[in-house]
Amino acid sequence: MSDSVKYVLDENEIPKQWYNIAADLPEPPTPPLHPGTGQPLSSAELEPLFSRAVIEQEMSTERYIDIPQPVRDIYRQWRPSPLYRARRLERALDTPARIYYKYEGVSPAGSHKPNTAIAQAFYAREEGTKRLTTETGAGQWGSSLALAGSMFGLDVEVFMVRVSFDQKPYRRAFMESFGAKCIASPSAETAAGRSILADTPDSRGSLGIAISEAVERALERSDTKYVLGSVLNHVLLHQTVVGLEAIRQFELADDYPDTIIACTGGGSNFGGIVFPFLGRQLRGGEAVDILAVEPANCPTLTRGKYAYDFGDTAHLTPLVKMHTLGSNFVPPGFHAGGLRYHGMAPLVSQCVDLGYVQARAYHQKECFEAGLEFARAEGILPAPEANHAVIAAMDAAQECKKTGESRAILFNLCGHGHFDMPAYMDYSAGKLHDQAYNEGDMAMALAGLPSVAN
Amino acid sequence: MSDSVKYVLDENEIPKQWYNIAADLPEPPTPPLHPGTGQPLSSAELEPLFSRAVIEQEMSTERYIDIPQPVRDIYRQWRPSPLYRARRLERALDTPARIYYKYEGVSPAGSHKPNTAIAQAFYAREEGTKRLTTETGAGQWGSSLALAGSMFGLDVEVFMVRVSFDQKPYRRAFMESFGAKCIASPSAETAAGRSILADTPDSRGSLGIAISEAVERALERSDTKYVLGSVLNHVLLHQTVVGLEAIRQFELADDYPDTIIACTGGGSNFGGIVFPFLGRQLRGGEAVDILAVEPANCPTLTRGKYAYDFGDTAHLTPLVKMHTLGSNFVPPGFHAGGLRYHGMAPLVSQCVDLGYVQARAYHQKECFEAGLEFARAEGILPAPEANHAVIAAMDAAQECKKTGESRAILFNLCGHGHFDMPAYMDYSAGKLHDQAYNEGDMAMALAGLPSVAN
Repeated sequence: MSDSVKYVLDENEIPKQWYNIAADLPEPPTPPLHPGTGQPLSSAELEPLFSRAVIEQEMSTERYIDIPQPVRDIYRQWRPSPLYRARRLERALDTPARIYYKYEGVSPAGSHKPNTAIAQAFYAREEGTKRLTTETGAGQWGSSLALAGSMFGLDVEVFMVRVSFDQKPYRRAFMESFGAKCIASPSAETAAGRSILADTPDSRGSLGIAISEAVERALERSDTKYVLGSVLNHVLLHQTVVGLEAIRQFELADDYPDTIIACTGGGSNFGGIVFPFLGRQLRGGEAVDILAVEPANCPTLTRGKYAYDFGDTAHLTPLVKMHTLGSNFVPPGFHAGGLRYHGMAPLVSQCVDLGYVQARAYHQKECFEAGLEFARAEGILPAPEANHAVIAAMDAAQECKKTGESRAILFNLCGHGHFDMPAYMDYSAGKLHDQAYNEGDMAMALAGLPSVAN
Repeated sequence: MSDSVKYVLDENEIPKQWYNIAADLPEPPTPPLHPGTGQPLSSAELEPLFSRAVIEQEMSTERYIDIPQPVRDIYRQWRPSPLYRARRLERALDTPARIYYKYEGVSPAGSHKPNTAIAQAFYAREEGTKRLTTETGAGQWGSSLALAGSMFGLDVEVFMVRVSFDQKPYRRAFMESFGAKCIASPSAETAAGRSILADTPDSRGSLGIAISEAVERALERSDTKYVLGSVLNHVLLHQTVVGLEAIRQFELADDYPDTIIACTGGGSNFGGIVFPFLGRQLRGGEAVDILAVEPANCPTLTRGKYAYDFGDTAHLTPLVKMHTLGSNFVPPGFHAGGLRYHGMAPLVSQCVDLGYVQARAYHQKECFEAGLEFARAEGILPAPEANHAVIAAMDAAQECKKTGESRAILFNLCGHGHFDMPAYMDYSAGKLHDQAYNEGDMAMALAGLPSVAN
């Protein structure tokens, strides 16, 4: 009954290079555009915002990019992360499927986010930056950047969506434990924030607003850079350590995934586990079925439009081509703050557009139910975001039971739920509802897509 | 700046046997006594309470005891746990000391506690037990047993000290996520609880009271066993996987500890890391300095008496010989619930009495300060209990700086602080105080030690 298996790699098998899917796509990645001119942005135009090294990565079509040794040195604290064969869950489901999960909750922040936070903090420090600004929704990303900043001696300012700031004081305290400053967004500290507060004094905030504030702050200070925890190419690049390790671990297991599943908010944990496998397929290797799972309340891939849009609410960011619900779309409240973003990583969107990736949406209550079933079988309580991958993997395993087929299903368990107990308490108390988004609001947000590029 | 080192073992190096210090002590362990007669208890007398397998382990003087394969199979989920060389902390302290820590926060409950919870649940299931009862203070132990119960299909009832039950709803929710029932103690469900509530309707509870309730519950049901998360010999035995792995990891590091440090509440994380090293010393191997660190508010080893005492408040348990503050001693409030116990593991007490182990007490504010300094250097936020080991290790490293000596200091980082953010928030807000215990209360509790055995 207790033979779930862990595939462990030695730390000298932490990847030495990240994998860049742009090298293997049949068409180049869509470039970010200047919102005024609709023309592709130059590196120089991005420099006020981002470190030079990550701009270069953002534009790169090199297949492999070296991971700096100081970054690998810190990765060693928790990497390589384990790959598990979930035999107890398989037995509980009575399925012929072989279920595997890569577990990123072993990082000191409890999710995959430090994989890129450490890299971005390293490059910023190398280029003489003193301070990093960012936004956070649920707090996973802010926590990871706080941690990364403390490793490299950088000040960190996190604009945290007001509703999370109020609901998740422990997340805020975690960031502050690492010396970061955490500011409720919208705030009076930026023009973007003040403008929102003037219109809506009791604004609950959104990721789009918080991004505007963090970007504004970086633009006004020469010693400060903005860092993003998802969406952009370089962030997904840094996350590919997840999939690269998993490929090696499947060799140890003498198996290979038929299906790969991950949840998608901005797309970084998804790209991280999927791209190295997809790259093999694109280079003529093993084909895999790939499924992106999103919340039914914020159905970017299943209901959004594939178009150029702003990444933020105040329209300070470049335009990027992605599946979007419109930069003014505000999803109804639900307990997976990491998946409440109106857009999607351009690389993930492109892979969906090219037909390499299928997408499916689930409601939150069924996700919590699946998460608890997983926890009781495997002993790990997933983050609410990760529950979206859990339920889809369990459904795929149930499908195998129907067909009698034994498929290998891999999913990314991108974080643990230790900071998400209020959500589980609400679920158990019957207080969670599957609130629908407003169709009219979505239509209006989509109608407001910038015309310059579309 | 970023070269902290992790020593990882392959999972086939998870120990196959636990180590029993009783085999190497110069005198036999002190036996538990019947409180009525003062005579050593027979195995049969303990059977209504405990599984036969753990009673046998409790009495055993065999040096090595086999770890059942199903227990090792579950250990594999997070074991072997990493040993780190804390080079970033060393640099922050500018010390010639070599600081190592064994990190038990990688377990799915976030602490060392599952090492014994899994074993005890396994034996109970093997012997046909349907239900386990236990108590929990801060919630680490209850969480671990909830997890273990779900792995082996056992019902779990946790009596949680009322003050923690109210202050730590997330811990309770974590236990409930794994299907356990969590009851505030004192409760109306047991005679012991009703008796306390009759006297003190607003009782905040204590570990001693919660033990009484859990024990009573097991005694009244033939399908139910009581399990304890610390103090007893078999619990410390199960925790020796920690030290056994560390010995092997020090071989990889080509080093050996001069000093070993762990915090002590009931003594299980301490015994777990220390005993395998102490055993080598007792068998003529390398000598080590050993330090037990306790809270100044509950100074069992530094201020208690070494005498036979009850483990619980209602005096339902056997008498065990240990350093004790008296079973009616209630320490003032402080944020390390796992260290708020009036007694100490008999084996740890005996080692202190024999002069193998030194003890030192710290106040909580200095512990939190040290914990934050550690977090900012090493990236891991420790549990408040573990901060007691952190500060003592940092002090030992500072001592090396004064003397210029490069000693190897090993400490047990027995759990992470993800569930303890309210404590860190109170610390950061200046709300924590180093409340002294009442000398008169302690004297009265000590005067009440049972006369039958002392």
